[in-house]
Amino acid sequence: MIETKKQDRLIGILGGMGPEATLDLYHHIISLTPAKRDQDHIRVLIYSNPKIPNRTEAIAGNGESPLSYLIESAKLLERGGAGVIAIPCNASHHFLPEIQAQVNIPILDMIAATCARLSELLPGVKAAGLIATLGTIQSGVYHKVLSRAGIELLTPDEGDQRAVQAGIARVKAGEHNRSTGEVFHSVGRRLVKAGANAVILGCTEVPLVFNPGEVDYVSLNSTRILAEAAVSWALGKEYIRR
Amino acid sequence: MIETKKQDRLIGILGGMGPEATLDLYHHIISLTPAKRDQDHIRVLIYSNPKIPNRTEAIAGNGESPLSYLIESAKLLERGGAGVIAIPCNASHHFLPEIQAQVNIPILDMIAATCARLSELLPGVKAAGLIATLGTIQSGVYHKVLSRAGIELLTPDEGDQRAVQAGIARVKAGEHNRSTGEVFHSVGRRLVKAGANAVILGCTEVPLVFNPGEVDYVSLNSTRILAEAAVSWALGKEYIRR
Repeated sequence: MIETKKQDRLIGILGGMGPEATLDLYHHIISLTPAKRDQDHIRVLIYSNPKIPNRTEAIAGNGESPLSYLIESAKLLERGGAGVIAIPCNASHHFLPEIQAQVNIPILDMIAATCARLSELLPGVKAAGLIATLGTIQSGVYHKVLSRAGIELLTPDEGDQRAVQAGIARVKAGEHNRSTGEVFHSVGRRLVKAGANAVILGCTEVPLVFNPGEVDYVSLNSTRILAEAAVSWALGKEYIRR
Repeated sequence: MIETKKQDRLIGILGGMGPEATLDLYHHIISLTPAKRDQDHIRVLIYSNPKIPNRTEAIAGNGESPLSYLIESAKLLERGGAGVIAIPCNASHHFLPEIQAQVNIPILDMIAATCARLSELLPGVKAAGLIATLGTIQSGVYHKVLSRAGIELLTPDEGDQRAVQAGIARVKAGEHNRSTGEVFHSVGRRLVKAGANAVILGCTEVPLVFNPGEVDYVSLNSTRILAEAAVSWALGKEYIRR
């Protein structure tokens, strides 16, 4: 009954970190799909599991590890018939090799896809700024991929990073407004002033309030880039995986 | 690992009819949940299966039946651990008894929940208008529940129903704009003029463009009401099922 022809590929989304970011990814997948009627759209299986423990706390060694929850959630998607997994949470990518080892379907790599887009968009780019949770920064996931491409990574200073953390917490609490967005806009401005050629929105809560139309620098939306990779996979095109 | 405590109940969504309506239901579930951080949110498993054949055509006897697809999709959610199923598609409710017979978890009844909300909102209501697909109208799902409550059902005349069908097709093709919304606003106005005390938005594409702030009559959003039922179930409160 559920067919496995290429046009019927099933995208799995391991979400809930947070739910609004998962909603945003799903929205991008729908809007990126050329469709005039329901049946033209891509099948998607979303497991929004917000009970997964906090990634930043775990990476800092202060909380329960999310790994077993991430693996269990990925397995649920695999059992459900997903042919690929997208994880709309940058910090979770710290655990990607360990999750990938437990499932037989590929996991899309949002970090690698975002860095590849950066090089496409700005060939010869020297430095990129990163707006992300402390967990993502401490895990070094962006640092590893960028340094391989010879791109320097600039992160906010201590005060700005505290502002970023507080801003992300506000988005998670439902405060989707301009003043929260402005926190990220201004941190980005200072990263550009420090030498960044572009700013990576490396936390999926950030694009929910960040408005590229209100800044005069290049920003990269990791959620949108992940959606593009997922849609490319579903439509049988090239995509970036680990 | 995946716990089954009451606070960890898993909502299943049998979606994709269309994907934007499923996105809208998920959005309502998130916004209706009292939460300050990810872990306060409800677990949700969404199977967006837009390949399910057209419901209106099948009900009119002109197309492949969606029933086997609906059953297969419901079973996938059950196997994934969902404790309840919400179906954000009014016309699909025609098949509810047959889907329910094939799974062991309750399916929320959007039609019954919408009619119950109508009676709560307007005690003693005599007549309700319905903006819905031809399939939903021909299936009689709203007629059956409303007539049991002694409420008359008013449907658009032939010309207006054609406009509704065309408007729904425009929404499904991505035309989410004021002019599409105005089609539904004005059909609702004529239903009220014909005697309806309120207008039921009985197709989940309609609320995507219908703006209650631009009409001077009472409208009922079936998607929002379904989200409320799902959240009530997840939080262990009363809810309406078949």
